[in-house]
Amino acid sequence: MYAQTPVPPYYAVIFCSVRTEAEEGYALMADKMMQLAKQQKGFLGVETARNELGITISYWDSLTAIQNWKNHAYHSIAQQLGQNRWYRRYKIRIAKVERDYEFELP
Amino acid sequence: MYAQTPVPPYYAVIFCSVRTEAEEGYALMADKMMQLAKQQKGFLGVETARNELGITISYWDSLTAIQNWKNHAYHSIAQQLGQNRWYRRYKIRIAKVERDYEFELP
Repeated sequence: MYAQTPVPPYYAVIFCSVRTEAEEGYALMADKMMQLAKQQKGFLGVETARNELGITISYWDSLTAIQNWKNHAYHSIAQQLGQNRWYRRYKIRIAKVERDYEFELP
Repeated sequence: MYAQTPVPPYYAVIFCSVRTEAEEGYALMADKMMQLAKQQKGFLGVETARNELGITISYWDSLTAIQNWKNHAYHSIAQQLGQNRWYRRYKIRIAKVERDYEFELP
């Protein structure tokens, strides 16, 4: 399901990636980072999907929370391993969510 | 591949959806809307991936461009059909991209 975020404004980190062929350790690390992110102060939610392109969007209550997560010691190691092993390329966008709305079948 | 967007700021429409079981007409409409979006003034790029959750992010140069696309006659029909047939639920977030950076293997 998609993330249950509060009323805007809040922040989104849009992480789009193309993987290498390397599988070893990836799923475990991705899972660990997901769990760790959820424990961080200011974390609001996460959404992820992958085909050829992978998209993971995490939501945060402030730019400070995003910066803290980027600099988290374990996350830093994961980022380095990601560049060395698992990702061919990726792009990260930091965005301020200004509005949202949703539809649900009755 | 991910979208080749210009230097920020620009805008993102984050569309997260959960589908119904209905397949009829969906792929054709999704493809037509993708092609039509790309022809709109102010369109900058799009990224999409789907597993249980579908994530499509389109990028635009202004809120006006986003509003114009939302109100586009053909797109309005597609939105109505989407609510009637193809989507169990979806959430749309409008966000202003403030920063981006990328990694690419040498």
